[in-house]
Amino acid sequence: MSRGIILVDPLPRTLDLIMAPDVRERLERLGDVVISEERHMPAEQVEELLPETVLIFGQTDMPKERLAKAANLKAIINVESNFLPNIDYQTCVERGIWVITPAAAFASPVAEAALGMALDLARGITKADREFRTGVEEYGLAGNRDTFRFAGASVGIIGFGDLGRQLRELIRPFRNTVRVFDPWLPTEIIRSADCIPATLDELLSESQVVFVFASVTTENEGFLGAREFQLMKPGSAFLLMSRAAVVDFPAMLKAAETGHIRVATDVFPVEPVTADDPVRAMPDVLLSAHRTGGTRDAFFALGSMAVADAELIMRGLPPQLCRRADPATASRLRSKPVSVS
Amino acid sequence: MSRGIILVDPLPRTLDLIMAPDVRERLERLGDVVISEERHMPAEQVEELLPETVLIFGQTDMPKERLAKAANLKAIINVESNFLPNIDYQTCVERGIWVITPAAAFASPVAEAALGMALDLARGITKADREFRTGVEEYGLAGNRDTFRFAGASVGIIGFGDLGRQLRELIRPFRNTVRVFDPWLPTEIIRSADCIPATLDELLSESQVVFVFASVTTENEGFLGAREFQLMKPGSAFLLMSRAAVVDFPAMLKAAETGHIRVATDVFPVEPVTADDPVRAMPDVLLSAHRTGGTRDAFFALGSMAVADAELIMRGLPPQLCRRADPATASRLRSKPVSVS
Amino acid sequence: MSRGIILVDPLPRTLDLIMAPDVRERLERLGDVVISEERHMPAEQVEELLPETVLIFGQTDMPKERLAKAANLKAIINVESNFLPNIDYQTCVERGIWVITPAAAFASPVAEAALGMALDLARGITKADREFRTGVEEYGLAGNRDTFRFAGASVGIIGFGDLGRQLRELIRPFRNTVRVFDPWLPTEIIRSADCIPATLDELLSESQVVFVFASVTTENEGFLGAREFQLMKPGSAFLLMSRAAVVDFPAMLKAAETGHIRVATDVFPVEPVTADDPVRAMPDVLLSAHRTGGTRDAFFALGSMAVADAELIMRGLPPQLCRRADPATASRLRSKPVSVS
Amino acid sequence: MSRGIILVDPLPRTLDLIMAPDVRERLERLGDVVISEERHMPAEQVEELLPETVLIFGQTDMPKERLAKAANLKAIINVESNFLPNIDYQTCVERGIWVITPAAAFASPVAEAALGMALDLARGITKADREFRTGVEEYGLAGNRDTFRFAGASVGIIGFGDLGRQLRELIRPFRNTVRVFDPWLPTEIIRSADCIPATLDELLSESQVVFVFASVTTENEGFLGAREFQLMKPGSAFLLMSRAAVVDFPAMLKAAETGHIRVATDVFPVEPVTADDPVRAMPDVLLSAHRTGGTRDAFFALGSMAVADAELIMRGLPPQLCRRADPATASRLRSKPVSVS
Repeated sequence: MSRGIILVDPLPRTLDLIMAPDVRERLERLGDVVISEERHMPAEQVEELLPETVLIFGQTDMPKERLAKAANLKAIINVESNFLPNIDYQTCVERGIWVITPAAAFASPVAEAALGMALDLARGITKADREFRTGVEEYGLAGNRDTFRFAGASVGIIGFGDLGRQLRELIRPFRNTVRVFDPWLPTEIIRSADCIPATLDELLSESQVVFVFASVTTENEGFLGAREFQLMKPGSAFLLMSRAAVVDFPAMLKAAETGHIRVATDVFPVEPVTADDPVRAMPDVLLSAHRTGGTRDAFFALGSMAVADAELIMRGLPPQLCRRADPATASRLRSKPVSVS
Repeated sequence: MSRGIILVDPLPRTLDLIMAPDVRERLERLGDVVISEERHMPAEQVEELLPETVLIFGQTDMPKERLAKAANLKAIINVESNFLPNIDYQTCVERGIWVITPAAAFASPVAEAALGMALDLARGITKADREFRTGVEEYGLAGNRDTFRFAGASVGIIGFGDLGRQLRELIRPFRNTVRVFDPWLPTEIIRSADCIPATLDELLSESQVVFVFASVTTENEGFLGAREFQLMKPGSAFLLMSRAAVVDFPAMLKAAETGHIRVATDVFPVEPVTADDPVRAMPDVLLSAHRTGGTRDAFFALGSMAVADAELIMRGLPPQLCRRADPATASRLRSKPVSVS
Repeated sequence: MSRGIILVDPLPRTLDLIMAPDVRERLERLGDVVISEERHMPAEQVEELLPETVLIFGQTDMPKERLAKAANLKAIINVESNFLPNIDYQTCVERGIWVITPAAAFASPVAEAALGMALDLARGITKADREFRTGVEEYGLAGNRDTFRFAGASVGIIGFGDLGRQLRELIRPFRNTVRVFDPWLPTEIIRSADCIPATLDELLSESQVVFVFASVTTENEGFLGAREFQLMKPGSAFLLMSRAAVVDFPAMLKAAETGHIRVATDVFPVEPVTADDPVRAMPDVLLSAHRTGGTRDAFFALGSMAVADAELIMRGLPPQLCRRADPATASRLRSKPVSVS
Repeated sequence: MSRGIILVDPLPRTLDLIMAPDVRERLERLGDVVISEERHMPAEQVEELLPETVLIFGQTDMPKERLAKAANLKAIINVESNFLPNIDYQTCVERGIWVITPAAAFASPVAEAALGMALDLARGITKADREFRTGVEEYGLAGNRDTFRFAGASVGIIGFGDLGRQLRELIRPFRNTVRVFDPWLPTEIIRSADCIPATLDELLSESQVVFVFASVTTENEGFLGAREFQLMKPGSAFLLMSRAAVVDFPAMLKAAETGHIRVATDVFPVEPVTADDPVRAMPDVLLSAHRTGGTRDAFFALGSMAVADAELIMRGLPPQLCRRADPATASRLRSKPVSVS
C-alpha cells in the first residue's frame, strides 16, 4: 500500500518545539512527512500535495475548494490550539474529516501555576519576599495581617473546561467549597466534580478566591467589569488565567488599586506590555507574562497528543485526546491567534 | 463536687491569641480558670494554686518539688508547642500526669505555604513578578527557560512528622515520586504514605524538590552542609521550613548564590534578620520572615486542640490531638523557645 | 415562536422508568411531548410528526427518507443505550443532527457491583456464607485458606470506557497495580488514570483479578477463550461484567470447574438461563442475573442525562453527558438490543 | 556489649504464624531469642530469663514481682492484640517499660471485608447467587427490587479507631455522608476525616448502612439492643465487625427476621456456632465465621509491626506502629482472649 502524505504546516509552532524525537518517529511511521516551518506552506505546494494528503498538522487554510481536492484527507490537526475561521467546518463534518486540536496540553501547567499564584495571593508569598528585600518584613503573626488560608477558603471557578477541571483536581486536598459558573455545561458535570453550580453573581459574592479560565466568545467579551468586581468580598483574590478580553481590564486594576481585591494575571490586553504601563508598579497585582502555559513539557504534550490521535484516526478509530471542533461552538470562539510561542 | 483550678500561664501566648470565644467557654466549663498573661505567673501564686490545680495550660516550671504539691494535677499542656527542660518528665510519667502540646496546629499552614513556595521556585512566580516590575519580563516559552513542572517532579521530604505528612497529602494530585528521610521512623510508616524510605544522600541526589521539616536535636545540628548541597541536582529546589539550625546556613546561601540550587527559607539563624544582611539581595532565595506557621487560624487551633484534649483527660480518657512528651525524645530536642508569636 | 415536537418512542423503556417527575417537567419545557410507550410508534404517526419534530427520544427507525422529512430535527437520543443499525448515521452527521445515548448511566452501578463481586471472590464472602448454612464453616485463619487480599492485588481491566474508568476510581484506596488492555485507546489515556497499558496476554498472566468491561464488536467475539484462561494465574479471579459474547463461555466455566480460576458473571449466552443449566451448581462461579446495571437510580440517570443534553442542544450547544455515535465505530458494535429492562 | 534476651511466649500465636523469614531475621538481630510456643513458657524459665530480658513478645504474666526482676526490660509486646489484666501497667509506666500491641494489623483486612459485605447487603450479591442456584433468580430491574446503591448512601460508623478509619478511607470514592459515633474521641478527629460527629441515636436513624467497629468495654456491653435496631431505617444494613458482646444478639437477629433491617456479622456470642443454631437458616443475615481479620498477611503484619517498633525501642526511640496500653483505658477493655487464631 502506498503511504499517504502528512502535510505539516505548524507555524507559529515548529516540529522540534512540539515533538520529542520518539514522537516524531511515530509521526513518520504514519506517512510521508512534508514540512514547511520557516514560513506558511506556499499555496502551490499545498495544492499539489492535497490529493495524496491523509493528515494535516497545522493551521493551513482549508476552504471548500481545497477540501474538494483532498480526497484522502482524514484529519486536520490544529497544533496552535485555537480553532480559526479558515476551515470549511461543515464540509469536514459531512466528509467525516476530523478537525481537532490538542488544546488540553496546556491545562496541566496552567492549573499548576494557577494554584501557585492562588497560594501566593492568599499567603502573601511574593509580597512578603518584596518587603524582605526592602527591609520592612514582619515576623510571625504580624507578618500574616493580610493573609488568609487557602485551605478551606471558598473557591469560585469561572469556565469549567480542561483548565478549570484540572485546577479542581489539584485543590482537592485543601477541602474548599467550590462554586462553578459555566453556562455551556449541564449542572450534572459540575456536581459530579463535587462542585456547586452557581450563577456568576453568587460565585463572585461568595468566593474568597476566584479563578477565571473562560474562553472569549462573541458573547462574553468584558463580562467581568466594575459591577462584578464590586460584588467580590473585600480582600478576596481574583486570578485571570485565560484571556484578557473576558475582563474589563482597567476595572480589574482599579479594584486592586483601591485595595478591594488582590489580583494575579497571566494575560494582558496588549502583549508585550508597554514599558511605562502603570500595572508594573501595582503592589496588589501579581504579574505573569503569559507564561503559565508555555512550558517545555506542554509543547511536547501538544505534539504527542496530536500524534496519538492521528494514530487512532489512521486505524479508523475516533480520536480520544484532542478536542473536536463543533461547528456551532467553533464559530462563537474569538481567541486571537497566538503570535509568540 | 468542687471544681478544680485551671492554671493558665501561657506566655509568649495569650489566651485571646489562642482561643476563640467558644473555645474559651469550653475551657471555663472544665474548672476555675486563673490566668497570668502579662507576666509569667509569680512563684508564690503558682505554689498557692497547685494543690487545687487539675490542669496547667502554659510553660510553668514544674520541678519535682512543685509536682509533689500538685496532688490533683492531671495534665500540663504546653501552648507554646516546644517541650522545655523545666519539667520533671519522669515524675509526670510515674504519676500519670499527661504532658502534651498541640504542636500539630502549625502543620496545616506550614504545609500549605511550603507547597506555595515550592510551586514558586519551580515555576518562577516571584522572580517573574520581580522581572516584570523592572521591565525585563519574558513571555511564553522564553519566560520558562529556568522553570520546571512541579507535577511529576521527584520530591524529597526530610523529617516526616505532622508537617511532612501534611505536605505529602497536599501534593498527592501532583503525582510526584516522594522519598522520605526520617531516622526516627520505621519504614512501614513511610511506605504506608506511598513514599520511598531513603537515605539522606539518596534523597538529596535524586530529588528535584527537597523540603526540610526536621526538628533540631542534640544530634542533627547543621547536618545539611556544603557536602549535602553539592549532592543536589543542578537547578533543584531546597525549602527550609523548620529550624535554621539544621542547616549550615552560609553553605546553603552559597549553593544558591552559585546558581547550583534555588532556595526558599522561612527561618534564619538570627531573627529578626539584620538590616544589612546580604541575604536580602540574593535573587535565587525566596524570603519568608518566619511567617508560614503563625496564621490566625493556627493559633486558634492551638487553643482548640488543647481544650479538646483537656476535656478528654478530665473524663479519664487519653488525649487524642496533642503530642505527648516522651521523656527519652524530649531530652533530645533542642528548639529555642519562641520569643515572637 | 411555536414549540417543536418531542417524539418519545422509548421501548423497551418507558418514560416513568427513566424520568423522575422533575426531569419529566424539564423535558416538557423543551417542546410538545408525544409519547408511544405501549408499542413502537406506528409508522404513519412518526411520519406525520416528523416535519415538526425537534428531538427524538427513543429507537425509532430513521432511514434517509425519514430524515429527509425531519427538517427541524436536532437530535436523536437513544434511551436503550446501544446504537442500532436503523439510523442513517452519515446523513445525521452531514445535517448536524446529534445521535447520542446516555450509556454511561449504567457505569456507576456496574462498577460498584463489580467491586463488590471482586471483594467477594477475593475474600470468599458468598462461599463462606454458603458453607456456614451447611454447617461446614471454618473460623479465623483456617477460614481464609483460599482467600487473598484485594488490597494490593494486581488488577487487570479489559475495556477502558466508562465502566472500566469508574471501577478504576473506586479501587484507588486499595492501591493495586492496574493493567489495562483497550486497543481503541491511546496509551496516554491509560497512563493518565495511573494504569499500565498492557497487551492482553501480559494482563492475563500478571493479574490476580481480571475485570471484563469490553463491548462486543465484529472483531472480538469470543476473544477470551481456553488459551486465555490458561494464561491466568492459578487462583485468580475473572469477572465478566459486559457481554457474554466476548468470552468462550464453556471455556470460562471449564476453567472455574477445574479450580484453576474463580469466576463471577453478570451475563450469560442465553438469558434467562435454562432451569437445568449446570452453571447453577458450580461452586466457584458467583452468579448474577444481568442485574448489576439495572438499578432504579441508573434508569433515572438515563433520563436525566438525556434531558440535560437535550437542553444544551436546544440552546445550540454540544451535548456533554451522552456518548456520540461515531459512524465508523457504531458500525463495528454488535450488541444485541436489550429485551428486558 | 553482651546481647540481651528476647523472651518469646506468643500463644495462641506461633512465631511462624506472625513472622515471615525476613522479619524473623530482624528479630534475631535484636538479641538472643528464647521461644516457648507449644505451651506457655513455664514460670521457672521465665523467672530465670528475666534478669537478662530486654524484650518480651507475648502475653506472659508480668505482675509487680516479676517486673522487679526484669531490670533491663524495655518493652512488652502483646502479639495476641488485646491487652490483658495480667500486667502491672502502673509499674511499667513508672519504669518506662513500653507495653504495646500491633492491633492495627487487623484493621486493613477487616475494613476491606466490611466494605465487601456492605456492598453485598446493598446490592444483594450473596442472596442473588443463592436464588440463582435454586432457580428463582430475577433479571434486570426486577432483580433489584430490594437493592440500594452503596454510592451516595448515608453511612454510620460506630467506633472510630483503626478499623473505622480504614473503612472510611476505603469508601471515599463512594461519596457517602458519613456519621461517626465514638464517645472516646474529640469531634476534631472525626471532622478531620470528613465525617460528622453524631449521637448514637442520630447515627442509627439517619444511616442507610451502619458499621460497628466498637470494642467491648465495661460500659458498653449490649448497648445496641431492640430499641436501637428499631431506630434504624427500614431496609437499612447493619454490619457487626468487632465483638458480639456490644450488641444484644437476639434483638439483632429479630430485627433481621422481621425484615426491618438486613444484617452481616463476623462474630457470634459463642464460637464455633452450634450446629443447630437457627441463625444458619436466616435469609437476611450474611454469615462470616470470625474470618475477616485472620488473613495470612494480617498475621505477618502483626509480627512486622511488632519487630519494627522493637527496633525503635532498642534505639531509645518511641514506638510508632503499635498501640500503647494506657493504664486507664486498658482497665476498661473487656475483650475475651482469642482462643483460635
